[in-house]
Amino acid sequence: MRSSSLDAIAGAQLFFKCENLQRSGSFKMRGATNAVFSLSDEEAARGVLTHSSGNHAAALALAARDRGIRAWIVMPSDAPQIKRRAVAAFGGEILLCEPTMAGREAAAQELILRTGAVLLHPYDDDRIIAGQATAALELLEDVPDLDLVLAPVSGGGLLSGTAISTKHLRPAARVVGCEPRNADDAARSLAAGRIEPAAKSRTMADGLRATLAPRTFAILRRLVDHVALVTEEEIVEAMRLLWDRLKVIVEPSGAVAAAPALLHKIGSEENVNAAQQNQQKKIGIILSGGNLDLDALPFGRAAS
Amino acid sequence: MRSSSLDAIAGAQLFFKCENLQRSGSFKMRGATNAVFSLSDEEAARGVLTHSSGNHAAALALAARDRGIRAWIVMPSDAPQIKRRAVAAFGGEILLCEPTMAGREAAAQELILRTGAVLLHPYDDDRIIAGQATAALELLEDVPDLDLVLAPVSGGGLLSGTAISTKHLRPAARVVGCEPRNADDAARSLAAGRIEPAAKSRTMADGLRATLAPRTFAILRRLVDHVALVTEEEIVEAMRLLWDRLKVIVEPSGAVAAAPALLHKIGSEENVNAAQQNQQKKIGIILSGGNLDLDALPFGRAAS
Repeated sequence: MRSSSLDAIAGAQLFFKCENLQRSGSFKMRGATNAVFSLSDEEAARGVLTHSSGNHAAALALAARDRGIRAWIVMPSDAPQIKRRAVAAFGGEILLCEPTMAGREAAAQELILRTGAVLLHPYDDDRIIAGQATAALELLEDVPDLDLVLAPVSGGGLLSGTAISTKHLRPAARVVGCEPRNADDAARSLAAGRIEPAAKSRTMADGLRATLAPRTFAILRRLVDHVALVTEEEIVEAMRLLWDRLKVIVEPSGAVAAAPALLHKIGSEENVNAAQQNQQKKIGIILSGGNLDLDALPFGRAAS
Repeated sequence: MRSSSLDAIAGAQLFFKCENLQRSGSFKMRGATNAVFSLSDEEAARGVLTHSSGNHAAALALAARDRGIRAWIVMPSDAPQIKRRAVAAFGGEILLCEPTMAGREAAAQELILRTGAVLLHPYDDDRIIAGQATAALELLEDVPDLDLVLAPVSGGGLLSGTAISTKHLRPAARVVGCEPRNADDAARSLAAGRIEPAAKSRTMADGLRATLAPRTFAILRRLVDHVALVTEEEIVEAMRLLWDRLKVIVEPSGAVAAAPALLHKIGSEENVNAAQQNQQKKIGIILSGGNLDLDALPFGRAAS
């Protein structure tokens, strides 16, 4: 999607890849589809499982249904009702567990032993990363001369795939990961040269709270030029601009990648004139998803 | 746009024509463009004006800018700031007047006498109606075998154009106008066989408060099969479903045309089994616009 008014605000030509309009409401459908359809018939027959409770879970349920196999989603017993509904709507089988990492892993292990189901990690998996890479691939097929590609970073699956596609098809383009300042472990990890643990995240971007895996960390170190940090206020401001001008629903995590371009943050962190830097540039922005609770918006009055 | 989950809810195949994604944020861009570009060079040089304050005003300003001519928008002095901003953003010149119909007309007349500008009525104009007709035209080019087309009705420009395109290209398809129950003058007018005055409208669908003109009334009488009425609660419910599943921003007026299909109201007013009636049917729905104030949503918490 394009928007002349957002272009004017950014002082650049913006090209939005709308993964919020993707099936299941996020880019996670790409990786989940690739992983599920990469399984042998024998593996597939045993079903798949994951213990993410967010967009990957919904996508995996839908991808499994597409292949006609079972998908179990291990979820903490305190997971929000809205996430359970999304998974159930796509035919996923929810397995509630103690709301701890140990509880999750024990429940997943028990299920794997009992059923032989294949565990599909949300990002620490080459098949998943290859799937996520198709978003930037399609964007570059449409706009081959992008100068810069922005994608959010959490566990690093989408950003790894974005960087692989971009640096292959358009080596001259910069790839910048975008992360909430309140969940800045990817920026810290890349600066330190080793995976840093996440602080207790207090970001509204609930899709961006995971930490890098060694697999994604290695790809990002090699191919990503910079990580831009975005405050909570900037997430709301970017989200509002996207809703208002593009007329599409973008979740907070999805808006994180648009914020640096819309709010002139690109370049300013590298001490160059941001407005001048953006001028006439072609910027690809991956709006990663559109799943959010309409009762908990950062704007709007109380429900009527 | 399509949505398998909305299809499942409706028990029908729904094809959404997303005029919320149209330039200026509504279908009004179609009529305004056709009218502005239908003017002779001599007429165009004098500029255009209107005294609508809603989507037509913004569209006319943008269409005039596209042609490189002036557009004056006569607005009541109490018009919401957000509407003034939209017009100004597209280069429209705002002329404030007394907030009465007499005040509007006096201001418009004075301007016409002074400048020779061409008054372009928001719907009582064949060029405007012809422009609005292209939304259904494009929809039927994409889906030639629609059984039913739903469009909102206010002054009747969009519904007239929708009916003309549909009955010409696909005579077998039914055309149903959709109107808030709290602004039901079109339904009353068609039932009475004469234009009935609007009651004082208390609908959140602020784009649907106008009344029919003789021109649009005559077209609707001839070509529209039915007018479905939608309550305020149903508008919110339809809007919420569209936001949640299509992931696009649809204004209340735009959601009115989706409500009868999503909430199984089609047919039930004609005493047939609505669910059965919808089954397997192909329904085209014109989502007329996406302009609304994000600070005044019918859902969401107080602003952070």
